[in-house]
Amino acid sequence: ASGSNLIRATLFPGDGIGPEIAESVKQVFRAADVPIEWEEHFVGKEVDPRTQSFLTWESLESVRRNKVGLKGPMATPIGKGHRSLNLTLRKELNLYANVRPCYSLPGYKTKYDDVDLITIRENTEGEYSGLEHQVVRGVVESLKIITRQASLRVAEYAFHYAKAHGRERVSAIHKANIMQKTDGLFLKCCREVAEKYPDIVYEEVVIDNCCMMLVKNPSLFDVLVMPNLYGDIISDLCAGLIGGLGLTPSCNIGEGGIALAEAVHGSAPDIAGKNLANPTALLLSSVSMLRHLDLHDKADRIQDAVLNTIAEGKYRTGDLGGKATTTDFTKAICDHL
Amino acid sequence: ASGSNLIRATLFPGDGIGPEIAESVKQVFRAADVPIEWEEHFVGKEVDPRTQSFLTWESLESVRRNKVGLKGPMATPIGKGHRSLNLTLRKELNLYANVRPCYSLPGYKTKYDDVDLITIRENTEGEYSGLEHQVVRGVVESLKIITRQASLRVAEYAFHYAKAHGRERVSAIHKANIMQKTDGLFLKCCREVAEKYPDIVYEEVVIDNCCMMLVKNPSLFDVLVMPNLYGDIISDLCAGLIGGLGLTPSCNIGEGGIALAEAVHGSAPDIAGKNLANPTALLLSSVSMLRHLDLHDKADRIQDAVLNTIAEGKYRTGDLGGKATTTDFTKAICDHL
Ligand SMILES: CC(C)[C@H](C(=O)O)[C@@H](O)C(=O)O
Ligand SMILES: CC(C)[C@H](C(=O)O)[C@@H](O)C(=O)O
Repeated sequence: ASGSNLIRATLFPGDGIGPEIAESVKQVFRAADVPIEWEEHFVGKEVDPRTQSFLTWESLESVRRNKVGLKGPMATPIGKGHRSLNLTLRKELNLYANVRPCYSLPGYKTKYDDVDLITIRENTEGEYSGLEHQVVRGVVESLKIITRQASLRVAEYAFHYAKAHGRERVSAIHKANIMQKTDGLFLKCCREVAEKYPDIVYEEVVIDNCCMMLVKNPSLFDVLVMPNLYGDIISDLCAGLIGGLGLTPSCNIGEGGIALAEAVHGSAPDIAGKNLANPTALLLSSVSMLRHLDLHDKADRIQDAVLNTIAEGKYRTGDLGGKATTTDFTKAICDHL
Repeated sequence: ASGSNLIRATLFPGDGIGPEIAESVKQVFRAADVPIEWEEHFVGKEVDPRTQSFLTWESLESVRRNKVGLKGPMATPIGKGHRSLNLTLRKELNLYANVRPCYSLPGYKTKYDDVDLITIRENTEGEYSGLEHQVVRGVVESLKIITRQASLRVAEYAFHYAKAHGRERVSAIHKANIMQKTDGLFLKCCREVAEKYPDIVYEEVVIDNCCMMLVKNPSLFDVLVMPNLYGDIISDLCAGLIGGLGLTPSCNIGEGGIALAEAVHGSAPDIAGKNLANPTALLLSSVSMLRHLDLHDKADRIQDAVLNTIAEGKYRTGDLGGKATTTDFTKAICDHL
């Protein structure tokens, strides 16, 4: 039922278990009466010359138009002559900040019970420049690019986020003792932004030390902001603390107010189509999307229903040690709404 | 008492707590009758033009001559125009492999009780090239350099180590899905070496996934080999699993059979000179040095004495929640010999 009060959002169900977990989100949104109308796009069967990848230009246009979207896992097809799907999305939509909240799930026990971290990752440059070449036979180099513009932009986002969410501390993660110019510039930008937020504690932590402290005592940290590769590493480490990528949401923020939420786990081809997948990461990502749209009531209801279902423990999917199917688990969430 | 049966080894006590923990090693070596004669060298007061750092040329000559040494923490003096002491040692002595064993200490409880990992880190190139420049204002770049020579050399070392120590698996850690050329070359070299060791399981794990798996279940890994920065990160993460850098040994292997063992924790200026420092990391590093010299009897005796003293729990330093002084703890170790 389309209507003028509905917000249009792009949905990429993705590959493997993607369609099943996307179906779960659609059901939960219907049950919670979320005023969203999905515009579904699938990964193309051939390389689209305009995107240089299997993502179609139309699907990117859809996100640009709607400014909001949700993405399931995409398996990058093997072969040459095209870009990774994830990188295409980040580049084409200029998704400059990747936000990954990570908190202990009540009732789902891991070695850590006090995790509440937000990783904010620069998502467009750094070690992901794609600039590499062979200097002479047997000697290759990659360029890490850090710009003032992208560093300021992600630092602004991190402090803005911290303030908006009542967070107390922003830690900039770096290796400026070795990469003095690149990570040094990143830190300089963070410091400039920090000065505008005197109420938020700002600190700088070397990446190796950060990893050691995270596994010893994650409650030492709050919001973490960092260049691309460190964000890739730290966000996975944090996910590990609370049970893995199947449980953590992610949202990419782009220029012009775009928000593309995504499950960052794999497409799990081994269990695809078997009604065994855990939709939690995609559901919690959809909650991030709703918060971005300021639909906090709906976001709270869905988040609570997901967390309560997991906490109750009666319906858990196999990855969490349970026996529930994707549809059982989804139904339980709808019942909790 | 110098004599023809004594092996000469270079000792860098280092800064801060360095002299105290070095004294502890000297005492334990005397008590265990280790046939080592120390040649002590201190960090210089000025930059030595031949090393471009505060390390004197003579001290490096000492390691080159003795081929074996032990190093405490060194605080890199702030300022421009000189190199970090750690990097100077690695570069000048061509210390190409950094070996960091990390195992749960019996009786010292952390969240993990099954850690038994060996991180082998390429120590001369990669992200530590020192090659950085500003392209235009606000745009800086760092070069990551990977060579076939250094990658083969560290891979050879890792497989050789695995075989010599009865280890079953070598995991190469990388981000070749993004840095296809640099990390791709590293993996190619590892694969080539792996073929010569059919009895050792070889696998490749992406760094972000590796971090997630390490915090979820470290017993999935055995020996890990990787480029420089990943080794820096993963070795600290692993140290965190068992209690921190105060408890983990490190040994650097150089061309021509050089071995420089070192405590990789900081110089802890706040507690320096107060007889409060924990000498465990330097003691276990000295054990690595003894093993390199094939003095396995002495190595076993000292390692057992250190571990038993910690396990017993009666004499523990403040960082481990105890009240023992450095000298109490050292005496207890000597009594356990
Ligand atoms: C799949 C891969 C290219 C991607 C990355 O490295 O960014 C993934 O690890 C992630 O974190 O989204
Ligand atoms: C002090 C620093 C330069 C050094 C490094 O980054 O290698 C340290 O972290 C280490 O691991 O030995």
